[in-house]
Amino acid sequence: MARARTARTFTKGTRTRQRIVEQAAALFNTRGVAGASIADVSLATGLEKGGVYNHFETKEALALAAFDYAAKLIREAIEGAVEGEVRPLDKLEAMIGVYRRLPGKPFIAGGCPLLNAAVDADDTNPPLRARVRRAMDRWRGLVAGIVRDAVAAGDLPPLDADALADGTIATLEGGVMLGKLYGNPIHLERAADHVTSHLRLLARSRPGVA
Amino acid sequence: MARARTARTFTKGTRTRQRIVEQAAALFNTRGVAGASIADVSLATGLEKGGVYNHFETKEALALAAFDYAAKLIREAIEGAVEGEVRPLDKLEAMIGVYRRLPGKPFIAGGCPLLNAAVDADDTNPPLRARVRRAMDRWRGLVAGIVRDAVAAGDLPPLDADALADGTIATLEGGVMLGKLYGNPIHLERAADHVTSHLRLLARSRPGVA
Repeated sequence: MARARTARTFTKGTRTRQRIVEQAAALFNTRGVAGASIADVSLATGLEKGGVYNHFETKEALALAAFDYAAKLIREAIEGAVEGEVRPLDKLEAMIGVYRRLPGKPFIAGGCPLLNAAVDADDTNPPLRARVRRAMDRWRGLVAGIVRDAVAAGDLPPLDADALADGTIATLEGGVMLGKLYGNPIHLERAADHVTSHLRLLARSRPGVA
Repeated sequence: MARARTARTFTKGTRTRQRIVEQAAALFNTRGVAGASIADVSLATGLEKGGVYNHFETKEALALAAFDYAAKLIREAIEGAVEGEVRPLDKLEAMIGVYRRLPGKPFIAGGCPLLNAAVDADDTNPPLRARVRRAMDRWRGLVAGIVRDAVAAGDLPPLDADALADGTIATLEGGVMLGKLYGNPIHLERAADHVTSHLRLLARSRPGVA
């Protein structure tokens, strides 16, 4: 009986923690860490402030957990899209497709958490900045790896895969920024088209292609 | 005598206002509007809080003036670089060069104010968002106009100038984000190279070019 109760309490505590993280992720992604307080998280979750502090001692600790949660949502969406494809260039198109679908089917309110947290944390929040770098390292590594496969398969000419990964991610994230600024997905569409067009021009520039 | 005194007071007031705007621009560009207070501006300028409020009734009003100031610095740098060139593709390269020089010679602490204010304001600050849109409209219009000139001159193939302007700006602003996130200008360099390489591939893809 005592055991069952402990298990139930644990489960309830885990669920409450997850509810806090999800609401905080949306709040911080929309307003920035400085722009949202534990009181806002309390309001969004319907918990007392003390209930939030039971799970996270500081707003900063909650912000890290919230970012990890948001970054995981995006990572799973991108990795899921990539796994469905065989050819490297199709994998890159599938990635770009995840961005194209963002405005209609956002993972989380407020746009891309990598972009938001990067701009939010770069000058002010070293622990969050370190998390964003780690998430961005993984994202850049995934793109660069697929680019290397595309070069090895002869689908792209020899090139600097890390540089193309950076250029690709910069274009897509800048497109998210423009789309959000104007409240119009056409700007993100154009950025996605830009990336696709660049890959096609590169493919056509391979040695031996007329 | 009374007249001279009024003029001197006016000049002193104007200078104080300008000092407030400059310090606030650096603060807001680094920490976001939510992350910096009038007390921070007071500290940075050495003025009493009341002295700041003499010039700006609210932090929000100061944030608008600070953004306008920061956007003007960038606009002047870009327009100055463009005016020094004759051929459209050289004008685009000159623009890209302004971004390349940003990390070594920033106009203002905290990175690109268009990017920062866009991400800061998109969900939370409609008046600031309207200012950023206006500045971005002007920037996109400048790039699209030069692209149209390049197409008319036969230096680029027929294409959607507004789309290429969006893709170019998205890539550069995304590159600023990556460079700031990593504290390493190589990521911005790669984004700038990406834009240059895209323009060259487009130029080579003109009808009639082998």
